[in-house]
Amino acid sequence: MFLVIIGVTGSGKTSVGAGLAEKLGWKFFDADDFHSAENIAKMSTGIPLTDQDRVGWLEDLENLIRIQTGQGVNGVLACSALKQAYRDVLARGGLVKFVYLKGTPQLISQRIARRSEHFMRPELLASQFESLEEPTDALTIDIHENLDWIIEKITEEIMPKKFALGMIGLGVMGKSLALNFQRNGIMTIGFDLRPKLSEEKELPVAESLQELAESLTEPRIFFLMVPAGDTVDSAIKDLRPFLQTGDILIDGGNSRFRDTERRVISLQAEGIHFVGTGVSGGQSGALWGPSIMPGGNSQAWPAIRELLTKISAKTSQGEACVNWMGNGGAGHFVKMIHNGIEYADMQLIAEVYDLFHRGAGLSNQQIASIFENWNKGKLSSYLNEITAQILTKIDPDNGTELVDLILDEASQKGTGIWTSQNALDLGAATPTINAAVEARIISSMKSERISVNKIFGGTSPFEGNLDDLIRHAEASLYASKVTSYAQGFYHLKLASSEYGWDINLAEIAKVWRAGCIIRASILEDFVAAFKQNPLLSNLLLDPTCSRAMAERQVSWRITLQTGIGLGIPMPATAASLAYFDAYRSEILPANLIQAQRDFFGAHTYHRLDRPGVFHTDWED
Amino acid sequence: MFLVIIGVTGSGKTSVGAGLAEKLGWKFFDADDFHSAENIAKMSTGIPLTDQDRVGWLEDLENLIRIQTGQGVNGVLACSALKQAYRDVLARGGLVKFVYLKGTPQLISQRIARRSEHFMRPELLASQFESLEEPTDALTIDIHENLDWIIEKITEEIMPKKFALGMIGLGVMGKSLALNFQRNGIMTIGFDLRPKLSEEKELPVAESLQELAESLTEPRIFFLMVPAGDTVDSAIKDLRPFLQTGDILIDGGNSRFRDTERRVISLQAEGIHFVGTGVSGGQSGALWGPSIMPGGNSQAWPAIRELLTKISAKTSQGEACVNWMGNGGAGHFVKMIHNGIEYADMQLIAEVYDLFHRGAGLSNQQIASIFENWNKGKLSSYLNEITAQILTKIDPDNGTELVDLILDEASQKGTGIWTSQNALDLGAATPTINAAVEARIISSMKSERISVNKIFGGTSPFEGNLDDLIRHAEASLYASKVTSYAQGFYHLKLASSEYGWDINLAEIAKVWRAGCIIRASILEDFVAAFKQNPLLSNLLLDPTCSRAMAERQVSWRITLQTGIGLGIPMPATAASLAYFDAYRSEILPANLIQAQRDFFGAHTYHRLDRPGVFHTDWED
Repeated sequence: MFLVIIGVTGSGKTSVGAGLAEKLGWKFFDADDFHSAENIAKMSTGIPLTDQDRVGWLEDLENLIRIQTGQGVNGVLACSALKQAYRDVLARGGLVKFVYLKGTPQLISQRIARRSEHFMRPELLASQFESLEEPTDALTIDIHENLDWIIEKITEEIMPKKFALGMIGLGVMGKSLALNFQRNGIMTIGFDLRPKLSEEKELPVAESLQELAESLTEPRIFFLMVPAGDTVDSAIKDLRPFLQTGDILIDGGNSRFRDTERRVISLQAEGIHFVGTGVSGGQSGALWGPSIMPGGNSQAWPAIRELLTKISAKTSQGEACVNWMGNGGAGHFVKMIHNGIEYADMQLIAEVYDLFHRGAGLSNQQIASIFENWNKGKLSSYLNEITAQILTKIDPDNGTELVDLILDEASQKGTGIWTSQNALDLGAATPTINAAVEARIISSMKSERISVNKIFGGTSPFEGNLDDLIRHAEASLYASKVTSYAQGFYHLKLASSEYGWDINLAEIAKVWRAGCIIRASILEDFVAAFKQNPLLSNLLLDPTCSRAMAERQVSWRITLQTGIGLGIPMPATAASLAYFDAYRSEILPANLIQAQRDFFGAHTYHRLDRPGVFHTDWED
Repeated sequence: MFLVIIGVTGSGKTSVGAGLAEKLGWKFFDADDFHSAENIAKMSTGIPLTDQDRVGWLEDLENLIRIQTGQGVNGVLACSALKQAYRDVLARGGLVKFVYLKGTPQLISQRIARRSEHFMRPELLASQFESLEEPTDALTIDIHENLDWIIEKITEEIMPKKFALGMIGLGVMGKSLALNFQRNGIMTIGFDLRPKLSEEKELPVAESLQELAESLTEPRIFFLMVPAGDTVDSAIKDLRPFLQTGDILIDGGNSRFRDTERRVISLQAEGIHFVGTGVSGGQSGALWGPSIMPGGNSQAWPAIRELLTKISAKTSQGEACVNWMGNGGAGHFVKMIHNGIEYADMQLIAEVYDLFHRGAGLSNQQIASIFENWNKGKLSSYLNEITAQILTKIDPDNGTELVDLILDEASQKGTGIWTSQNALDLGAATPTINAAVEARIISSMKSERISVNKIFGGTSPFEGNLDDLIRHAEASLYASKVTSYAQGFYHLKLASSEYGWDINLAEIAKVWRAGCIIRASILEDFVAAFKQNPLLSNLLLDPTCSRAMAERQVSWRITLQTGIGLGIPMPATAASLAYFDAYRSEILPANLIQAQRDFFGAHTYHRLDRPGVFHTDWED
């Protein structure tokens, strides 16, 4: 946020502005420092600036505000801005509040007279009062009072004792979200049990949960950003004595959706509206605009909708990436599926990287160029983009490519595993996501891998045509990726029906278009697909998607056959293609499996030629 | 079991035997009906039979007993069997108890005289008494008493009021196990809430749980064979009032190992020894010898070891397929893994069947011959064997192959899903098992598959060499199979360490060699591998297994590449090979995944060149 201190020359803008900035810990700027050489020359010879003279200067100030607030910096700007038109230009730069220092011509000329170093001709002051269009929507301060009183008064007015939101947990994500709220004009106060984080300088911080609760406007909105699991329950327990009916409690961590469901129900009984929200985008997303997936007690939604909309990511068309997902654990469930797809996406990219690097012997630089190139087409996505950036990053210590120095054991925090486990509970097939989760597990067995490698040796050399391989791999990555999204959306559809959420898949695809880790241009196709046919059971049945898949089938098979021939493990690619081939098979060999089950366990079977349940004595 | 009623002519063998059979609901046989025409002619002219005359007749009776008890039939046989040598022949046929009807020569000749239709020369009776070698180990009955008293007396003596085991739940599996116990001389009484099953004729049945409990010798052994889940808890609750300290309760269903763990602990507190046991082999295994995997309260093991050993499957070397798996839920856990491997095994076979049938256009008969052929080699297994039988089974109704008439939607009861979910909990990679579980899920979406098929069409025609394909597929099936067992044993190893079971993998491989569904000759190699190196972390590291895998690598790749080219889904084969390729990779592309995670989420990474935890600001 920017406070712009306005008023005629001599009203005390610089003293008040600098004093305020010091008190608030904000950055101070003097508009006079931004004049062009021509303007300065003109003013020093006593010639008043015309509106025309001021255009460039005001635009520079507007940019200043945009850039600073854009970086999360709060500032105080001393700037005469006598006319409404000037102030309108400044207001375009971001969240701006005007403070008007008001005084009579007499008082001001006396003050000017006292400043020995600052001579001003009376006509100039008079012309300023002539130009002055007093603001009607600014905070107006009588400059008759002394400086300290004025600074106190402005602080009191600008920084309300009551905040709109309390952020509990000021780690990387919590602090970034708080600053995002702050930057969007939602006055936020923080709290953290960890002493280091409670000394936060960029945010007002309460010293206790009681103080936090008492400093919020009603209904109070608390945003929990603490580690998922027991910590959430203990934070709720600690906060409970200070909560009252109608208060809203939002959990923004990666909680298990069943936990969220439980918390919604137990707090609902006490009149507290609990919301579990997915927040995706990492640290940078949290600060600049994450994709937000709230769900839980729907009574909270009207009160938090605008807040979350303000801080959320926006698509290039300006649409906010936030929407209500449903009751109970719907929000955290959608985030879990997002993460499952993220696992699949990352693994599919890693497999192509492995095929190129270890398989075809391409350098990191070459592979980065390929990904950059792909990023201009249908594969354009955040993960694709950062892959190219990662592959060219040089380790400053030894001047070689950093990626080659990183230990090849992938960690995981749980959401991918939960996705796979829940898919099995619901009977949703998510083989690509499962393969990605398992690939991380196998990667973590580095010492065993080294032993097994000694027995079986490494990969075979690539002898094919490199351009063909690159072309096929692009198609393969695309087809595998669509398949993994198809699995994820199908999983969501089953969950929505099983848990009674009435989830709108088009809305979810929309929320994932910006801010989050899996954002990709492909999502526009998915939004269109689900909008056109809200009952679409699987993305592979959508005409646009199925056409794109059909075109890529041959390349997809060739890519995987190449990987298999070279000995490069491509489990997620293989799982995707096998899913596709099984899903498009009118006849599968499950009849044999049913016969086996009936043979050894009398489990019975159905027939193709007539209804009923049958058992055969197979050994007759 | 067979009761053989012996004694001289006129002692009442036929009347007593027939009456007993009627009372017990057993089958009655008269040895006289089994004489050859020559013997009958000889006897009718009053010439006594020599020992030589009796040889064939006794052997026929021995066979009768073997066949009948082999079919689970209990019988009563009236047969003079005057000499010990004759009785020894009969006893070779199965579990036999002798009842000797004893009377003085005077009493018997009076009786014979009373039978008007049955003339007998006194010399013949005298010769019988001369031949008679009175048994010392038979139940001896004074025929002075009347017929009803004699029948009651024998029933009382043979069918004790106290039973060794109470079987609760007389469904297909419960009844089969009870008959198995019975056949092995472990007197069993059953109980079932369902009226139909409580009218069981082949077993004594109690009318209430109280009666069941009171009719058992102490410590009482109850065997629960009821559906897994809540039914087990409610059965325990119903039985609880009749249990006393030291009683043993065995749950033989497919319970979740966590439930078993809970039940062991809660019953232990009350002095009851709870055992959760895996029982594999289907209905036929339950009757003739299943593979048995008990675990739980180890205080029960000494008391049930012999019982379970008697009814268990035996390997060709006569080793019993039963052993104590560990405390808590170890038994049911091992059974769960068995079933996970079973899923993988069935799916791998189904994929090869699909490749041959839909892919290469082979007939069911041709494929059956291939499997029969494979069954003579390294692939020899129960599932392989029944696959060949299934493929040649003709549907009696319309004279075509039955397998083609079975709906291709595979069902599942849960153990495969639990295996996959638990593997993810423990961080065990079981991709082959997961792929098998998911293949069943996809198979169950028949109507969707038909829609998708209309868009993408079917498979491509096979144009390669058929003999090569068959040869490669055999190697591929073997390699995939070893991989899935390797995953299962690895999973067991992790679980044993996580849950503190101290599981001996060689013992588990031994228990799986016979009786169970996954029995296969390959298990002898695994027993040897784990015996040689009990700390072996993965079967793929065993010299015998790794040599076999290395020999099959090329064929494995070609088979899968063929399937991919044809469009035949082979998800479990693909998952196996990808696991193998990842596991044998010294370097995996997980370094890129770690970099991505650090890029967007500041999740940090480790390095290859030095210890520590690192974070990079990638966007610099």
